[in-house]
Amino acid sequence: MLSPAVETLIALALEEDLGRGDVTSEAIFDAQAKVSGQIVAKEPLTVAGLAIAAEVFKRVDEATRFAARVDDGQRMGKGEIVAVVEGRTRALLSAERTALNFLQRLSGVATLTRRFVDAVAGTGARIVDTRKTTPGWRALDKEAVRAGGGANHRVDLAAGVLIKDNHVAACGGVKAAVERARAHAPHSLRVEVEVTELLQIDEALAAGADIILLDNFDPAQVKRAVEQIGDRAIVEVSGGITLETVRAFAEAGPDLISVGALTHSARAVDLSLEM
Amino acid sequence: MLSPAVETLIALALEEDLGRGDVTSEAIFDAQAKVSGQIVAKEPLTVAGLAIAAEVFKRVDEATRFAARVDDGQRMGKGEIVAVVEGRTRALLSAERTALNFLQRLSGVATLTRRFVDAVAGTGARIVDTRKTTPGWRALDKEAVRAGGGANHRVDLAAGVLIKDNHVAACGGVKAAVERARAHAPHSLRVEVEVTELLQIDEALAAGADIILLDNFDPAQVKRAVEQIGDRAIVEVSGGITLETVRAFAEAGPDLISVGALTHSARAVDLSLEM
Amino acid sequence: MLSPAVETLIALALEEDLGRGDVTSEAIFDAQAKVSGQIVAKEPLTVAGLAIAAEVFKRVDEATRFAARVDDGQRMGKGEIVAVVEGRTRALLSAERTALNFLQRLSGVATLTRRFVDAVAGTGARIVDTRKTTPGWRALDKEAVRAGGGANHRVDLAAGVLIKDNHVAACGGVKAAVERARAHAPHSLRVEVEVTELLQIDEALAAGADIILLDNFDPAQVKRAVEQIGDRAIVEVSGGITLETVRAFAEAGPDLISVGALTHSARAVDLSLEM
Amino acid sequence: MLSPAVETLIALALEEDLGRGDVTSEAIFDAQAKVSGQIVAKEPLTVAGLAIAAEVFKRVDEATRFAARVDDGQRMGKGEIVAVVEGRTRALLSAERTALNFLQRLSGVATLTRRFVDAVAGTGARIVDTRKTTPGWRALDKEAVRAGGGANHRVDLAAGVLIKDNHVAACGGVKAAVERARAHAPHSLRVEVEVTELLQIDEALAAGADIILLDNFDPAQVKRAVEQIGDRAIVEVSGGITLETVRAFAEAGPDLISVGALTHSARAVDLSLEM
Amino acid sequence: MLSPAVETLIALALEEDLGRGDVTSEAIFDAQAKVSGQIVAKEPLTVAGLAIAAEVFKRVDEATRFAARVDDGQRMGKGEIVAVVEGRTRALLSAERTALNFLQRLSGVATLTRRFVDAVAGTGARIVDTRKTTPGWRALDKEAVRAGGGANHRVDLAAGVLIKDNHVAACGGVKAAVERARAHAPHSLRVEVEVTELLQIDEALAAGADIILLDNFDPAQVKRAVEQIGDRAIVEVSGGITLETVRAFAEAGPDLISVGALTHSARAVDLSLEM
Amino acid sequence: MLSPAVETLIALALEEDLGRGDVTSEAIFDAQAKVSGQIVAKEPLTVAGLAIAAEVFKRVDEATRFAARVDDGQRMGKGEIVAVVEGRTRALLSAERTALNFLQRLSGVATLTRRFVDAVAGTGARIVDTRKTTPGWRALDKEAVRAGGGANHRVDLAAGVLIKDNHVAACGGVKAAVERARAHAPHSLRVEVEVTELLQIDEALAAGADIILLDNFDPAQVKRAVEQIGDRAIVEVSGGITLETVRAFAEAGPDLISVGALTHSARAVDLSLEM
Repeated sequence: MLSPAVETLIALALEEDLGRGDVTSEAIFDAQAKVSGQIVAKEPLTVAGLAIAAEVFKRVDEATRFAARVDDGQRMGKGEIVAVVEGRTRALLSAERTALNFLQRLSGVATLTRRFVDAVAGTGARIVDTRKTTPGWRALDKEAVRAGGGANHRVDLAAGVLIKDNHVAACGGVKAAVERARAHAPHSLRVEVEVTELLQIDEALAAGADIILLDNFDPAQVKRAVEQIGDRAIVEVSGGITLETVRAFAEAGPDLISVGALTHSARAVDLSLEM
Repeated sequence: MLSPAVETLIALALEEDLGRGDVTSEAIFDAQAKVSGQIVAKEPLTVAGLAIAAEVFKRVDEATRFAARVDDGQRMGKGEIVAVVEGRTRALLSAERTALNFLQRLSGVATLTRRFVDAVAGTGARIVDTRKTTPGWRALDKEAVRAGGGANHRVDLAAGVLIKDNHVAACGGVKAAVERARAHAPHSLRVEVEVTELLQIDEALAAGADIILLDNFDPAQVKRAVEQIGDRAIVEVSGGITLETVRAFAEAGPDLISVGALTHSARAVDLSLEM
Repeated sequence: MLSPAVETLIALALEEDLGRGDVTSEAIFDAQAKVSGQIVAKEPLTVAGLAIAAEVFKRVDEATRFAARVDDGQRMGKGEIVAVVEGRTRALLSAERTALNFLQRLSGVATLTRRFVDAVAGTGARIVDTRKTTPGWRALDKEAVRAGGGANHRVDLAAGVLIKDNHVAACGGVKAAVERARAHAPHSLRVEVEVTELLQIDEALAAGADIILLDNFDPAQVKRAVEQIGDRAIVEVSGGITLETVRAFAEAGPDLISVGALTHSARAVDLSLEM
Repeated sequence: MLSPAVETLIALALEEDLGRGDVTSEAIFDAQAKVSGQIVAKEPLTVAGLAIAAEVFKRVDEATRFAARVDDGQRMGKGEIVAVVEGRTRALLSAERTALNFLQRLSGVATLTRRFVDAVAGTGARIVDTRKTTPGWRALDKEAVRAGGGANHRVDLAAGVLIKDNHVAACGGVKAAVERARAHAPHSLRVEVEVTELLQIDEALAAGADIILLDNFDPAQVKRAVEQIGDRAIVEVSGGITLETVRAFAEAGPDLISVGALTHSARAVDLSLEM
Repeated sequence: MLSPAVETLIALALEEDLGRGDVTSEAIFDAQAKVSGQIVAKEPLTVAGLAIAAEVFKRVDEATRFAARVDDGQRMGKGEIVAVVEGRTRALLSAERTALNFLQRLSGVATLTRRFVDAVAGTGARIVDTRKTTPGWRALDKEAVRAGGGANHRVDLAAGVLIKDNHVAACGGVKAAVERARAHAPHSLRVEVEVTELLQIDEALAAGADIILLDNFDPAQVKRAVEQIGDRAIVEVSGGITLETVRAFAEAGPDLISVGALTHSARAVDLSLEM
Repeated sequence: MLSPAVETLIALALEEDLGRGDVTSEAIFDAQAKVSGQIVAKEPLTVAGLAIAAEVFKRVDEATRFAARVDDGQRMGKGEIVAVVEGRTRALLSAERTALNFLQRLSGVATLTRRFVDAVAGTGARIVDTRKTTPGWRALDKEAVRAGGGANHRVDLAAGVLIKDNHVAACGGVKAAVERARAHAPHSLRVEVEVTELLQIDEALAAGADIILLDNFDPAQVKRAVEQIGDRAIVEVSGGITLETVRAFAEAGPDLISVGALTHSARAVDLSLEM
């Protein structure tokens, strides 16, 4: 099942490009002419979004056959075939751009995630995403992160309690904030607290935090925090972590490393439809 | 007026993050507590998406006041204030991420476009976008390109005839394709033909092309093509043009340079809401 | 693919007639009773809208079989069979009115267009529609015009630049308006200028108009304008042209004749479902 | 309150014309330039659809002021002013066509209805519409009929039982059909039976019909039927009744005359926006 | 055909529970693992809503097979099997709650209706519902009432004229209200008048009421009213009628007994999915 | 902000009752006639849904003024005034039933919840809801539970991990299921395990369960389980708990008592609009 939100996004995408027709293909090709093509990786990448691309082709013309050659999450080399598409020429050319726009972008997220995950291999730290996703794309972005080997942070504001500095400031302290959260939030959710210095950790733990988020710590500080926390809470780090620095953070021992760039700054990877 | 497509995208975005509530803010803050904050540029950037950000805050709580300090298209320095927001604490913190997600991404597109436009200053070439936009974001992406000083290529498949190599191949030649397009497409549209070598130009012009798209030419080849075409058609170049190479292309004399990266590979710029 | 807009229109149509059930058919017929019927032309007509009618029957009951005997664009004589429908009695009778309402109206547009097209046969002028379509029906109306042998003018306000007298007046002259359009509109679009007297033609051409629209000229004036313009621009005529007068206009030599009545004043043709 | 269906129709209409922008107005006018104009009747007509036209202008730009000078149902002479509109030039010109398309078509329905109603003045017969409305426009078409002085037949298939010849045939007789309807349909609905000859009337009345619909009777037959029925049922006539023949039917004494042409074959009347 | 309203309700329901995924099933089960289960009545009940439950399972995963063992309206004993479901484990467990929520609630309505219908067996009175349905569930609630052997009152405010005390008060009397209704409402609708004492009945009948609704009468008063009305109108009673009192009302001779509790106060019956 | 889901539900509700007009009010009242009324509790109750009722009146006619006299969560005695409504007569009477349908049902949930909460006063146990909500009403039902003093369990399948017997069976044991959940589910969520006998508790705790759900235990068994678990996990009880038995369960010492009946079997409470 595609969720209604994803269905709506696909409908928006087709409508914005093709809703009023494709004057070029309609002018040039006969309605029944047929063609086949291949979607090819033009650079090394990790693929994601195949089900969406298939759906796009199918919505433009139910008669189009889309056969994926690999699954989401597969690493591809340059020139390798991702999928084969066959059907009416008009339909293929009209759907091409929209299908590729989804595939290039989601594979971009998966590819970048894969690089982060590879960079921390063996350390025990998990790479997780954030809520800095493309508006309208939350579910798809999070699925692409999983395709790249990452894990998901909370899917929305209802699926986890995360008390940040703004919350603490407006609430009058970590202790008050955590206690209110524990009293009022659904008991199915853990309570996570963002701290920006070592001194705040004990207050957060004492108040009952289940997860400590170390924001903008350097690896050495993370190491100290991890030791201080022990097994009293799960430890997550965040804040401007790059491919260059992520290994050092991972080796400092946190459970989780969250990286906004996975979804907000992945560039599209190059894929093309070759007839 | 926001178009229905943009309204839908905003609704999707709010729904996916906030549709089931914000358990943290609801647990921690009283319903009537108030706060004010500033949206601040954390790096140099060109701003885009202010109307969308304003709409996001307003939809979460009509009582929130959003006052933009600048207009879309404005260049901002690090630390400068983009907008001031005032209202209920819950509403501001709940809307923050979605509003910033729009603003960071659209400003990212504008900022990258601005760099391309600056790079070709004085040459007479216009920087234009492509259809390689984020699915669901076509209108917003194209508006951000304009905010960055770029121009828009056709908005969808109905707003321009562009005959690419796949069309030519499937149709049996440039001449046949252009003639069919001129006979069957609405007369309000120009006919553009993509060529990949100099030899194809005369055939395209003879068949009646209004615009010649030089795909994957190098600057020297562009220069020769521009001379060959003269004022018989508008000249556009495309194909992997980067910030490093764009000036050389522009100096070769085309009317338009189209750059897919403007929309498919802009990274989000850093903006934050500071209470 | 039916576009989302057309899907929505069909959904609106079924909902408004049948959304709360068909009390007559439900009261009178058993749920599983079956019947077959024919859709018959009750007067000479050119058919359009068959795919929509088929979709209406299918949405009411997926088990209904709709077999078109002809294609859109076919001329039918009185009494000829357009399609055969078989399925559950309740479903057929409940869908009948909505399906016919689409078919009668779209075939009405195609039939009227056909008469205009026939009237100018051999002159080289094309009959084109306008934006005076039934709100919500733009795509369907334009398809019916094509079924009747006509061509389409721009599909929406984004698919062509058309500078009318109101634009010229508010902008301060033809020259200024055309220049602004050429500077700011997407290059994929031609620039069309409406003129109401011969004197304006040279100014429009000098400013760079690609198409001249002669509004409310008589045939003699059109002839003079066509000579004056030569091959410097495409020539379109419009303004109260009727079946009686269209031949005289066509013989005056324009490329295009646009007729609002094709879509805003076509009467429904008579088709019925006979069991 | 506009119903959700009407809201959707207006959204479809704006989207199909303006959803991707108005390249002409955007290229030519400054965003803040203002203008005012008048909507003028270009021929005698009865106005309908003013609230829809107002809504169209308002949705394009909330700052536009639309002041109707008359109410729906008013008869207007050629050259009389229907409404005054003021606001941003871009917004007015972008909304113009859609607003007029609604107004011209609905006023067309009201104008034609008015002529039928005038034709039967003094006879006691009411002119009523049918379900032969433009798909998606049911509510608007029926309101326009009322604006023209007509009355509405059932609004949908759930708001009245009407047993036609197809029902009778498939059910095995008038008696069986009426009895099933009385047993199974909601008691809030009258039971109407269509008859095509005088002989069927007594069977329908005996079975408990509340309304007799005389289909394709001539005026003399209607007269006989009216006498035969007396006050045992309401009498409606239908079937190809025109402006030329309606008076004769009305004088034969029926309670109601239903005319499909009111909504399926009204031509648009001429209204224009003059700046 | 499910109506668009029901389709929307199902989409809302799946979205609210499952739109962001089912973290438990996704974490625990392999994507392709399969299972089968039975939907079992855990108490005696009358079933309703099978088509909706089937649709829910199918939307979550088209590959799920749902085989109903009985039809809506069937009385089930404790432990009897209502339907068999087979498919992917994730899909079944993810859809389970939503499907059961529909089925339990609609079967609750049918079960309660069945008890009222049984209580009046042999009296000739029909049990009918009201407009006191769950918002968004009108069509489903009314179908469940029919499954329980009840009949439907008007489906919406357009499908019957019902003049209540508030109408009478605001209009200045029963006579004025009925006369206005007869003059202005579609002729396909009967006119029903609510009376709260015997004295109002003759005024309502004289004014032309087709149905008299006796509100908050006791059985003895109903008996007198029925005698007074004779065959001049249909008689309906309403007002706090319970399973304990309904028989006494039915024996007083009305045609219809309307019971709001059928839809506004039915408790869910117990059904479960057993693997 | 009403969520898009709630907006859709309100739109569905108005459409289903009023979408085709209110023939009674339109026939009887002048368009501009005004009236005022009070919404009155006809029995003791705890109010919920005031914002929805207000929205319903406002959507039917923006000019209607709805002034709540109390807040959601307020206990009301019979005859007390909940809100005052003023506006056009047509609008008030047309909106009345839909507004009351929401208010009666949501207040029914709040009232029943209040009784459960009162019954456990002083024990330290919290009353929580389940996912057995009315499809389409999830957010509203959960808000009504809070208005009645209850707390919310997970809002959807993404906001908590709950491993039930079906999961355990299909997965091959509690240990495997909990471990998979801890490895794959977002770390922001606690892991809850349903057990049906005391013997399963230690296995669940050993595997890392954060919450133990005791299903269908009697109070004595709950007491033993609470002692066994100590502070190693949160303890929740569920399974057919009624107003009669809830106190005994609460005194056995669990943290949470979940009650499906709060939302699936609350009867509507009686509220009416008195003019």
